Amino acid sequence: MTGTVYLVGAGPGAPDLVTLRGARLLEQADIVFHDALVHPEIVALAASAEKIPVGKRCGRHSAAQKFINKRLVDAARKHRVVVRLKGGDPMLFGRAQEEIECLAAAGVRYEIVPGVTSALAASADLGTSLTRRGVSRSVSLVTPRTGEGEDPGNWVRAALAADTTAIYMGVGEAASISSALIAAGKPAATPVVILENASLPDSRCVAGTLGDLPRIAAQGFAGPALILLGDVYRELVSATAVQARKAAGF
Amino acid sequence: MTGTVYLVGAGPGAPDLVTLRGARLLEQADIVFHDALVHPEIVALAASAEKIPVGKRCGRHSAAQKFINKRLVDAARKHRVVVRLKGGDPMLFGRAQEEIECLAAAGVRYEIVPGVTSALAASADLGTSLTRRGVSRSVSLVTPRTGEGEDPGNWVRAALAADTTAIYMGVGEAASISSALIAAGKPAATPVVILENASLPDSRCVAGTLGDLPRIAAQGFAGPALILLGDVYRELVSATAVQARKAAGF
Repeated sequence: MTGTVYLVGAGPGAPDLVTLRGARLLEQADIVFHDALVHPEIVALAASAEKIPVGKRCGRHSAAQKFINKRLVDAARKHRVVVRLKGGDPMLFGRAQEEIECLAAAGVRYEIVPGVTSALAASADLGTSLTRRGVSRSVSLVTPRTGEGEDPGNWVRAALAADTTAIYMGVGEAASISSALIAAGKPAATPVVILENASLPDSRCVAGTLGDLPRIAAQGFAGPALILLGDVYRELVSATAVQARKAAGF
Repeated sequence: MTGTVYLVGAGPGAPDLVTLRGARLLEQADIVFHDALVHPEIVALAASAEKIPVGKRCGRHSAAQKFINKRLVDAARKHRVVVRLKGGDPMLFGRAQEEIECLAAAGVRYEIVPGVTSALAASADLGTSLTRRGVSRSVSLVTPRTGEGEDPGNWVRAALAADTTAIYMGVGEAASISSALIAAGKPAATPVVILENASLPDSRCVAGTLGDLPRIAAQGFAGPALILLGDVYRELVSATAVQARKAAGF
């Protein structure tokens, strides 16, 4: 008997933002390999499964990818329903392709269950659409984390060309992001928002401009955070500045 | 009494790809205004609600946007839980901003519930990740549908700069998309996939190159379809070509 491996997107954070299909598969799972970043209440949906944390957090895997691949194949030879539970959506900055290829090479059946990615959850939290008639008709999703042999200018070009940009896994590199984009021609006055813990009760938003980004990012973000930039955030940045001035007694 | 309007993403198509939160809100809804494109089984989750279709399909609203805005405000003055159910995610190519502004101006409480967007569901169907180490580290989400006064070159620049591009609502304009991108410098040999009805049992995929796009798009797509392009689809296009040759008896 060989089981099926389901690569399931856990969504952006909140336990009730997983899909119905994802939740049902977790309930049926015999074994679950989950990113450690996934909310405990989502993992707990797999009531009768063995639960194995395999990654510290998105983009910073503590278990080596090859080891995860091998364990998925081994698990499918012993169990009927194997779930690989990943933060966000599996097919965006998730290294799912490496797991898929390994499963395919071993002749293991797999299915992918998409999830809500954090740029969409952040937009819901902010009440600001990624696209907006007359302001933004294109969105880029990028990460400044480049692998060996990859062109580090690549994400800059994509961020520059789109009206709205969501930068994943970038808060730790805010200073170099700001300088790279400004050097490439993005105006320093471009509105910027950092959203930490999108969709969770402790989500936090700070706003400013691209030139300000290193300073606002230095406030310290413990949770996963997304950088958003573009003219759609102009009113949000103004409102935040007004609030900050009011709070400071101006 | 004033109720709350929930702008809920129905997800890409399959009824079980709505989120748990979206499903629960539909079950509690007093009234639901839904895009006609949303799967009937998702609308049916709102068992005790009045159900009002307000749009023919994504991007082609049959009910005028202003009329929808007004009806949402009126509904919130009569009902406790009002759901505005939109295909995909509300904050991406969804005109949610216009509804949000109208609700805010009228003093109506609103919340946004994100959904799985079709580019992610299409990637799950294809088994091909939007990003892939060494091949793609940036994704653009664009539409060639530009409004009055908008720069029609905008989406072309965003599509050109990213490694992988998902073009929403573009199949009807495949010929002009192909020529615009090639004229701007995208190689005619860039792998292209059209995926119709992502996540549904009758999903259909055709693959080819950017130069071929007008021909493959002419096969006729009745359902909503997404155009995907980039080097991540190279193997998929080769495999499809081999299958097609085999089917043709070569």
